[in-house]
Amino acid sequence: MAQVPRIGIGMDSSITPLRHGGLSLVQTTDYFYPLVDDPFMQGKIACANVLSDLYAMGVTDCDNMLMLIAASNKMSEKERDTIMPLIMRGFKDCAEEAGTQVTGGQTVINPWLTIGGVATTVCQPNEYILPENAVVGDVLVLTKPLGTQVAVNAYQWLDQPERWNRIKLVVSEDDVRKAYQRAMFSMARLNRVAARLMHKYNAHGATDVTGYGLLGHANNLAKIQKNEVGFVIHNLPIIAKMAAISKACGNMFGLLQGHSAETSGGLLIALPREQAAAFCKDIEKQEGYQSWIIGIVERGSRTARIIDKPRVIEVPAKDREGELW
Amino acid sequence: MAQVPRIGIGMDSSITPLRHGGLSLVQTTDYFYPLVDDPFMQGKIACANVLSDLYAMGVTDCDNMLMLIAASNKMSEKERDTIMPLIMRGFKDCAEEAGTQVTGGQTVINPWLTIGGVATTVCQPNEYILPENAVVGDVLVLTKPLGTQVAVNAYQWLDQPERWNRIKLVVSEDDVRKAYQRAMFSMARLNRVAARLMHKYNAHGATDVTGYGLLGHANNLAKIQKNEVGFVIHNLPIIAKMAAISKACGNMFGLLQGHSAETSGGLLIALPREQAAAFCKDIEKQEGYQSWIIGIVERGSRTARIIDKPRVIEVPAKDREGELW
Repeated sequence: MAQVPRIGIGMDSSITPLRHGGLSLVQTTDYFYPLVDDPFMQGKIACANVLSDLYAMGVTDCDNMLMLIAASNKMSEKERDTIMPLIMRGFKDCAEEAGTQVTGGQTVINPWLTIGGVATTVCQPNEYILPENAVVGDVLVLTKPLGTQVAVNAYQWLDQPERWNRIKLVVSEDDVRKAYQRAMFSMARLNRVAARLMHKYNAHGATDVTGYGLLGHANNLAKIQKNEVGFVIHNLPIIAKMAAISKACGNMFGLLQGHSAETSGGLLIALPREQAAAFCKDIEKQEGYQSWIIGIVERGSRTARIIDKPRVIEVPAKDREGELW
Repeated sequence: MAQVPRIGIGMDSSITPLRHGGLSLVQTTDYFYPLVDDPFMQGKIACANVLSDLYAMGVTDCDNMLMLIAASNKMSEKERDTIMPLIMRGFKDCAEEAGTQVTGGQTVINPWLTIGGVATTVCQPNEYILPENAVVGDVLVLTKPLGTQVAVNAYQWLDQPERWNRIKLVVSEDDVRKAYQRAMFSMARLNRVAARLMHKYNAHGATDVTGYGLLGHANNLAKIQKNEVGFVIHNLPIIAKMAAISKACGNMFGLLQGHSAETSGGLLIALPREQAAAFCKDIEKQEGYQSWIIGIVERGSRTARIIDKPRVIEVPAKDREGELW
């Protein structure tokens, strides 16, 4: 969510003190255009993407969701009646998975199909974590691999020979299809367990990685720190083969520079150094997915940077027959 | 707001019970495309339109708003930089007028310019009025005149000779410009005083009149009544000359049939008969605007109808030099 500047709190979600006994209203909204060709998964991704803004604040329970939908006026009636209900079902299924519900929304007709929502929770101050308390010595953890945008684009290029010719020397069609599947399931995954573990492992702040890319969001998070700190990123966990595609495309994506947009990306979390490994292990135990320590918090002037030759971590490291990760 | 069906409560806004001491989350979202050519006023209208869903529930205080904006990709950069900030200022000014604030939102690029928002409040059960308790003998009050859509369209037709020729026998250019101004200011007006007075005069339920027209919304309100009642509408307060235009256009608008869409229309309120006149007088005293008793609640099967030859009330009844109403 883009936020109108306010007094010192919130980043991915807005926090509004309420008239009632110390409670705050935490809410966020997001909507965008389809990325994947599976409408049900697109609905899930949209929902996970909205909720991710709450999870970045350490909020684990969403009280209510609204859905924002625009059907395209370029769809036939039949297309509309097939596709829109699937998107809505995906969105609602994901909301249910997150332990919340969709109670309303708005549907309009628009040239471009649009999907998004609003997530709201009312909570005590101890239920959210302000993102501004990183200290020197913390490390940075990322909970999903990068490269969703590259994977989605490469998949579209399978049907565009001119584009495909540019990357076919570094990847096979099968690589691209697999990366696309990985990106799709990664985007549809909730950051909820990570949000819960932020409390357990005393996180000092977090944000979620979306449209501005890893470095953009790392910079935004660095900017609002109370302490004079800077973020230095050494490792880039990337969906397998996507680094190769990005290199083959010159500066077009900027994936290794941290500029490539992500959708429903991982949480970037500042954690006490001695707790970070346990945090990553705990997530893997609960969800079966890896997280990575990607950088450190050092003394600095509230900016973030990626070192000259960051280590690329291919995710997964090796293909396993019949499994995505 | 369109609502996903739930158990018995809410209509214009969703009501979600919270984990915290009897509190409920009341929220709504709405977005649409521009209607007027003044961007500042368009922003105000969008904000008033969103808030109207809360007011229809008798909620007078909005705790937080989010803004949903799409700039058109057909605008030049200069147009975008001029128009979008004005729309946003109008939206925020209106929010401030309503005693609330805009703390965040989402901005995207889209073929069509879009403007809307989310309004949220957390309140005790006595702060909202469920819309389902109309009883036989109640009367129906409407707090803004009808005809906004007709006025906006007629104004656009001033530049379309073919359309204009259809209505120029019944209205002058000056009539249309005035009606357009009246519609614009009426749409930008908050239903907040009406919401407050719903409590004072013991309203039994309300809705706001928007896209489905007066009869559509009256039917929606009738449908959810607990008691076996029906709504009968006798009077149609309409922005001056708009009834004549609607007639001249055949069935195109359906204004006199209650089908013409409204934007940010009035509240349609079921009030005890003996309190309705005092309600209307009180609104006029506080705001300087008329409300009208337009119908009655009788025994029935939860539907609404307009009588065969409803009385059209021209608003205002007479033009006053230099004044809109």
